[in-house]
Amino acid sequence: MSQDSYRLILACPDKVGIVAAVSTFLANEGGLITEANHYLDPDSSWFFTRQVIAADSLPYGADELRARFAPIAASFAMEWRLTETAKPKRVALLASKQAHCLSDLLYRWRSKELDFDIPGVISNHDDLRSYVEWHQLPYHYEPVNADTKAEHFARIIALLEAMKPDVIVLARYMQILPPEICSLYAGQIINIHHSFLPAFVGARPYHQAAERGVKLIGATCHYVTDELDAGPIIDQDVARISHHDSIDDMVRIGKDVEKTVLARGLRYHLEDRVLVHENKTIVFE
Amino acid sequence: MSQDSYRLILACPDKVGIVAAVSTFLANEGGLITEANHYLDPDSSWFFTRQVIAADSLPYGADELRARFAPIAASFAMEWRLTETAKPKRVALLASKQAHCLSDLLYRWRSKELDFDIPGVISNHDDLRSYVEWHQLPYHYEPVNADTKAEHFARIIALLEAMKPDVIVLARYMQILPPEICSLYAGQIINIHHSFLPAFVGARPYHQAAERGVKLIGATCHYVTDELDAGPIIDQDVARISHHDSIDDMVRIGKDVEKTVLARGLRYHLEDRVLVHENKTIVFE
Amino acid sequence: MSQDSYRLILACPDKVGIVAAVSTFLANEGGLITEANHYLDPDSSWFFTRQVIAADSLPYGADELRARFAPIAASFAMEWRLTETAKPKRVALLASKQAHCLSDLLYRWRSKELDFDIPGVISNHDDLRSYVEWHQLPYHYEPVNADTKAEHFARIIALLEAMKPDVIVLARYMQILPPEICSLYAGQIINIHHSFLPAFVGARPYHQAAERGVKLIGATCHYVTDELDAGPIIDQDVARISHHDSIDDMVRIGKDVEKTVLARGLRYHLEDRVLVHENKTIVFE
Amino acid sequence: MSQDSYRLILACPDKVGIVAAVSTFLANEGGLITEANHYLDPDSSWFFTRQVIAADSLPYGADELRARFAPIAASFAMEWRLTETAKPKRVALLASKQAHCLSDLLYRWRSKELDFDIPGVISNHDDLRSYVEWHQLPYHYEPVNADTKAEHFARIIALLEAMKPDVIVLARYMQILPPEICSLYAGQIINIHHSFLPAFVGARPYHQAAERGVKLIGATCHYVTDELDAGPIIDQDVARISHHDSIDDMVRIGKDVEKTVLARGLRYHLEDRVLVHENKTIVFE
Repeated sequence: MSQDSYRLILACPDKVGIVAAVSTFLANEGGLITEANHYLDPDSSWFFTRQVIAADSLPYGADELRARFAPIAASFAMEWRLTETAKPKRVALLASKQAHCLSDLLYRWRSKELDFDIPGVISNHDDLRSYVEWHQLPYHYEPVNADTKAEHFARIIALLEAMKPDVIVLARYMQILPPEICSLYAGQIINIHHSFLPAFVGARPYHQAAERGVKLIGATCHYVTDELDAGPIIDQDVARISHHDSIDDMVRIGKDVEKTVLARGLRYHLEDRVLVHENKTIVFE
Repeated sequence: MSQDSYRLILACPDKVGIVAAVSTFLANEGGLITEANHYLDPDSSWFFTRQVIAADSLPYGADELRARFAPIAASFAMEWRLTETAKPKRVALLASKQAHCLSDLLYRWRSKELDFDIPGVISNHDDLRSYVEWHQLPYHYEPVNADTKAEHFARIIALLEAMKPDVIVLARYMQILPPEICSLYAGQIINIHHSFLPAFVGARPYHQAAERGVKLIGATCHYVTDELDAGPIIDQDVARISHHDSIDDMVRIGKDVEKTVLARGLRYHLEDRVLVHENKTIVFE
Repeated sequence: MSQDSYRLILACPDKVGIVAAVSTFLANEGGLITEANHYLDPDSSWFFTRQVIAADSLPYGADELRARFAPIAASFAMEWRLTETAKPKRVALLASKQAHCLSDLLYRWRSKELDFDIPGVISNHDDLRSYVEWHQLPYHYEPVNADTKAEHFARIIALLEAMKPDVIVLARYMQILPPEICSLYAGQIINIHHSFLPAFVGARPYHQAAERGVKLIGATCHYVTDELDAGPIIDQDVARISHHDSIDDMVRIGKDVEKTVLARGLRYHLEDRVLVHENKTIVFE
Repeated sequence: MSQDSYRLILACPDKVGIVAAVSTFLANEGGLITEANHYLDPDSSWFFTRQVIAADSLPYGADELRARFAPIAASFAMEWRLTETAKPKRVALLASKQAHCLSDLLYRWRSKELDFDIPGVISNHDDLRSYVEWHQLPYHYEPVNADTKAEHFARIIALLEAMKPDVIVLARYMQILPPEICSLYAGQIINIHHSFLPAFVGARPYHQAAERGVKLIGATCHYVTDELDAGPIIDQDVARISHHDSIDDMVRIGKDVEKTVLARGLRYHLEDRVLVHENKTIVFE
């Protein structure tokens, strides 16, 4: 934890010799691999790997490592990146009135359970200002109504531009993002939806669940795409309910599932454990 | 377990005094209540209860108890029934080629974990005959194809008529029952669907789940109605999967969930723990 | 939720007619029962019940209800109490350095997910002062070392005396309470232990778990008695780990289990759902 | 599934270049790696890996592969083995009176969900003979009492010697194996214990659990060593119970956990996913 690492994430069409090439390269440089995961997708014949290298096992820095690795990457037509634990990701938080997911993430941030920076919190309500500001974080109150959506999202885009986030987390932010934001930050926006997707897409999923009489309720952490609640799923979980649970009970029970699933999904993303392939995720837990 | 009991199940519009009337009646008769559950549905203001009475605490039998209780039931406009543990329910089993649910139920039956009688097993394949017959149970092989559905289901109706089942269990029986059977045995047909309903209704739910990239797969035990996979849900459960699980792995992992959920749902039904109200169930676990 | 209720909790040796007597009494007074649970312990032949009565269905208040019910209670030798949702319980919180359980409970308190009052927070470290004080709650920093235990606990007793708590929650408070406090507040002190008891009693349970190589870690919410980690268990849960989880990972994963289990156990207690019988609990969920 | 593979399992003290050496060797031979897992134990600095190689990607057989790999293994002081999916493991089953684990394993065997051979079933009761023999498997009834243990285990040793098992599964076999058998088949005997170890070691764990008032019951699949219930844990799981569950209910609920955990643990072992290091397991799921 305390030791700096590089994370090499790559994907390419499979052929014999990829692992040999990567691991021989790293061994020749003296790189100590502390964690490694591989996955060969049998349907697409694509190969995916995540390798964690102890930074101090190399006599040079991340840029030099990138430069030396580039020819190998090119020869296998790899999609790849090398990230540095010394540079925590910047996470912009979008919330609404409900505090449970935001409070949970702020706890994990201030206790250093999760390692990230917060350039700011944006909300369409002012309710959470005092709590956020106690953390000495900027709070941007941006009200919106049916007539002001265009200007609202223009302001949000401007705020995000200034924040330069690596990740945008929708911590029970109840607005549907316009396609422009979705494509500006493709693969970087994480949402928590309060149902076990694909069941109960859209509004009021607990009401939909009560109507159907399900015996488990769930939450889904996923990347946001243009299509509502249809992006690649990072993580999901459920909790048991019974006939005596009212919708209020479902909301209460569900909140614990939502925050746990969002925190887990965000951790996977922050630690570069999630690779997106078509509309699915590979999660190297 | 070993002691005979009566189970009094009733539902009626709520008003003050129902429990008092029922429990005073039972106390006056000397009836020892060994288990009691109540539920007041706040939406419909209907009241539901299940009470288990030690048979030998009463000086007379079930029919006399029914006769004595009838006036109280009438005065509250109760829907009610009184069942006897001494008369195990008759369960007709319908299966296809897959053995996991059928094998599991036969184990629970022969080990007496679940208390029921089996008048026979019906299948549209002959694969499971030898296994079923080892249990000294009748096996009815009724093949079917797209052109013979009408005759097929006529034969099934005749077989069921002869079996006089209290319950029909579709133990991964892969045919859609015609409306006629659904209404002949309304509230008595239990199906196991291999998804977390309402996600992935219909055919090949594991393929649908793989396509969507979910992180949990599930199974749902429900009563069969005319509308496919839309009847009242008795029980559900899920199992975690990950990107490296193929559809074959999902099928394997799912089988364990299916048989557990079906056995649990059937147990609830056999023990008169399930009350159906509108399209939902009250399950007094 | 929004409507005031009375909760009648009682236990007595079983005999025919208890439910009849209680429910007839309530019906005669006009009391509307909105929730009812019964349990007959077959080993001890004791009967337990929890009944929730809508306060406004009665023409008088809680004291009058108590007075009218007392003769019935006496005739069955009942141990009983009647609580009022209009009078939230007072919960004294004891913590140490670790913030996860305390933060979680403060969230549930300020969001009104759980209904209780907090007369104050006591800690043997000053780390959490600013966070607690943001909630406008008193924070009592009471340092302790091996030589000052006697005075320390004398001060704690004095603080508690002034707080008049109904419940004392040890939210990862790392000191062992002296017998005097245990008996002063018997049945009122709730602890969260970071293992699946009775495995890994005492100090450093995650280290013990790592040493044994278990595949699940757990947490246990229990009432505190004189015997360390041996009091009646209110709730437990577990989370899956694997060989690649270090002790730091186990601590991180465990924290989520601890706070969930503590919050659940506290909710059961606050809602009078927990009855203690010998060294076990009956939890009417 | 259908395609033959080799599994290369190895462990050695960590140093830079192990993966490079192994993967370069395999790449040079033309070996297609379809699955790979690594683990570096930070405490002992030992490295563990499991690699699955498509058999038909190599121009020669398993023995030649072993011969060619041996020098690399020697140069890193590896403990290693290469197994072949074309040679299913031989599993001797030991049972007693209870049928649930044995029935479950026989189902998984006859449905080919798990790939193994069964040289025979040994039991100290004759109850399960007919069921086992329906599967056309040899059934060895070996009664035992307190006075005949020595001869009994001598006969068991002889039976096992004839069966030449790769694995011995104690499918709720209720006898404690003598040290001689434990050491003859060290690392090859798998037991299912009906508790969440290390809680409730030894006899009647459900009675111990009821006595302590736990809220979850569990089962543990582990390798058998000389010390009772203390061998390396392969897998564990739990199920929720409540105050109204009697010991009979716990036994019933527990059986489902036991058979699931045993089947999962056995699958891991059969697929060479379990590596034992000191008294712990690395399980490459």
